[in-house]
Amino acid sequence: MTSASEPIRCLFLGASLYSGSVESSSHIAKSVHRSAKAVLTCCEELSHYTETPGSIQRTFLSEPTHEVHRHLGAWMGRLGMSVWVDAIGNLRGVYAGAGAKRLIIGSHLDTVPNGGAYDGVIGVVIGIALIELLGGERLAHTIEIIGFSEEEGVRFGVPFLGSRAMAGTFDRALLDRLDRAGVSVADAIRSFGLDPARIENAELDADTAAYLEIHIEQGPVLEKACLALGAVEAIAGQTRAGVTFLGKSNHAGTTPMAFRRDALCAAAEWILAVEREARRTPGLVATVGKIEASPGVANVISGEVLATIDVRHSVDQPRERAFAAIVSSGYEIAHRRGLSFHHDVRLNQAAVPMNAELVALVVESIAATGEPPMLMASGAGHDAMILAARVPSAMIFVRSPGGISHHRDETVLLEDVQTALTAGSYFLRKLTL
Amino acid sequence: MTSASEPIRCLFLGASLYSGSVESSSHIAKSVHRSAKAVLTCCEELSHYTETPGSIQRTFLSEPTHEVHRHLGAWMGRLGMSVWVDAIGNLRGVYAGAGAKRLIIGSHLDTVPNGGAYDGVIGVVIGIALIELLGGERLAHTIEIIGFSEEEGVRFGVPFLGSRAMAGTFDRALLDRLDRAGVSVADAIRSFGLDPARIENAELDADTAAYLEIHIEQGPVLEKACLALGAVEAIAGQTRAGVTFLGKSNHAGTTPMAFRRDALCAAAEWILAVEREARRTPGLVATVGKIEASPGVANVISGEVLATIDVRHSVDQPRERAFAAIVSSGYEIAHRRGLSFHHDVRLNQAAVPMNAELVALVVESIAATGEPPMLMASGAGHDAMILAARVPSAMIFVRSPGGISHHRDETVLLEDVQTALTAGSYFLRKLTL
Repeated sequence: MTSASEPIRCLFLGASLYSGSVESSSHIAKSVHRSAKAVLTCCEELSHYTETPGSIQRTFLSEPTHEVHRHLGAWMGRLGMSVWVDAIGNLRGVYAGAGAKRLIIGSHLDTVPNGGAYDGVIGVVIGIALIELLGGERLAHTIEIIGFSEEEGVRFGVPFLGSRAMAGTFDRALLDRLDRAGVSVADAIRSFGLDPARIENAELDADTAAYLEIHIEQGPVLEKACLALGAVEAIAGQTRAGVTFLGKSNHAGTTPMAFRRDALCAAAEWILAVEREARRTPGLVATVGKIEASPGVANVISGEVLATIDVRHSVDQPRERAFAAIVSSGYEIAHRRGLSFHHDVRLNQAAVPMNAELVALVVESIAATGEPPMLMASGAGHDAMILAARVPSAMIFVRSPGGISHHRDETVLLEDVQTALTAGSYFLRKLTL
Repeated sequence: MTSASEPIRCLFLGASLYSGSVESSSHIAKSVHRSAKAVLTCCEELSHYTETPGSIQRTFLSEPTHEVHRHLGAWMGRLGMSVWVDAIGNLRGVYAGAGAKRLIIGSHLDTVPNGGAYDGVIGVVIGIALIELLGGERLAHTIEIIGFSEEEGVRFGVPFLGSRAMAGTFDRALLDRLDRAGVSVADAIRSFGLDPARIENAELDADTAAYLEIHIEQGPVLEKACLALGAVEAIAGQTRAGVTFLGKSNHAGTTPMAFRRDALCAAAEWILAVEREARRTPGLVATVGKIEASPGVANVISGEVLATIDVRHSVDQPRERAFAAIVSSGYEIAHRRGLSFHHDVRLNQAAVPMNAELVALVVESIAATGEPPMLMASGAGHDAMILAARVPSAMIFVRSPGGISHHRDETVLLEDVQTALTAGSYFLRKLTL
């Protein structure tokens, strides 16, 4: 057992838990319960703005995005915010403060096909609700709410178009990229009524000093820990690769076991080696998600197996070490079995740490609600990963019941939204930029 | 080490090897070398009778089958045999003997798509060459050569149509079965110029007392043992089943290892359990040839895996025991990992032992060539399996270089054909029916 102020190290991606809580704050807004209900109602309303009636699908700059912008823009307008849509289609609302510095609160408004009602959207809606909870009061810093136009990468196969434009890391070559219907990014922007030549106008203002993203966890960690919120320390780095085991296809009836070079048996051994490596490396996740055995016939020994490997960790070194071990176990297994092995790295993305001071303030804000604040990593990518390259960034995770996301059953608990609003209000007031 | 007359037990399907040889026979025909060359030339010529120019494909009663019948029929006619085609399209040539009993020598004339030039055909051609080697001499028994019209099951998805008709086990309901072009078995028979109403005329004559099939091994056992020929003791029994592992699909980045129910990891563990079970059971082969992981996406944990299992052994009891162990390991692995497991038996076919006296004569015939005779099982099905239900049957396997079959690279060594002809000649003369 640790002392009250010590973090308890958790198993996943270096998550840690303070076993005690910071003194509860006394200024939790009385209207938070009502506000949390409004957040859920708003998310539910926005879920009806979809490309495919009956399920939630809102890809980059699709028609229903206009309706989402009108809905949220109107609300922000009522709160005295100045609202506009930048050249990449990000919805932006500015709530002016007394001082020169600016905090951005944002997340994304696009969804995956058959998505849920909260992934992304809830971070924008909670941001607006936090402004509303200020009841007209102006803080030292300006607060800008952003609803990113694109995070999932569904329409053009490239994620983070909105946040890249804002961070100034949007590659203009992407403008020529086509979707499945043959429409280019530039044309999609034009069809939405915007000017692709002016992408630069999406860049964040020079006075921006911090970025905060509130997002559902999309995993089971908070739920398993019985916690409403988590403070994200880092967004995990990822290595993705394709692998091939090349053996010898043969008749399943006439080839004795001793003479086989079965690519599927080799791949099976490797899949278990991957799992073992992940289990023995604290915080690591490693997944073989795709497998294809050829010829793939019941009475024929597999001559070739293609598979994928996805390895993530909040710290680069253990991820790189584990990936190297996974690759060398592939070579070792193949060699021992008389097969050949090949691997092809398709993505090698470093972990992105969040800003330590902002994370500390998030921890304090969560503790102020009476919840033990857990430090955790995000295993999935988020806009905060892109913004962090440009501005100090932090994230708050909200518990995902059942760990379910990217699915119509995705949900959020009312009391967790309430806790998030309480923590967010604390954060806004305690933040000094 | 064993004494000279003791069989050496080999590892595959109960194969055994006599380490010494029986006294070599002195009556090996001088013309055997020329005859072996003629066999290979004939197989090469027949390979040009194909449905798909450039590759070998001759399915049940396809047009080029007529040319094969003309080619082999003409040869048999020159040897003084009476030649006819029965109602299922089997080519039959009868070489009358002095006594009342009949030996059938046969194999199949159809091929798989992209097949080789020797699978099946060579058994028929060697049979005719054996008659030729008699140089007109009549033996006590009649010899009937059969070229079965259908063994592979390619055209109608059901194998052994030719030998079933001959054994009297042809199910007349099969006549209505359609090929991909919508042609029924009955129509295919009619188009070939035969009468499907008279299938019974294909049944073997009442005087038939033995069946001998010479076939390429289609596996690596003889080659690994440096032997030309093998005496088949039994055709292995088979169990085939489909299995399902049902877990939980989840995000590969946000789901810690401890909370996963990864169906692919469970299947991988089971594939290795299958391999282990086969390796520890002498003579058993077990194969997982087909696997499908869902959703099959690189960054998503597999929620479901479908796979197949194919288990074979020359003796039923060890096959049944191994299959039961394989199934229970599936349940055990799934249970331990929090998944469910399901299996669905699709084929459960008993082993077919060859006739002990005929096998003993085959062993003696091989030994007479100076080759150590190896007793082995066939892991693949053959017409002999069907005929054995009706008449004492035996098979001789001829070495398959590289174990390659069902492929254009399928080949046979000239000296092995020579040895087969020598052994076959001995068999014909020593056989008493």
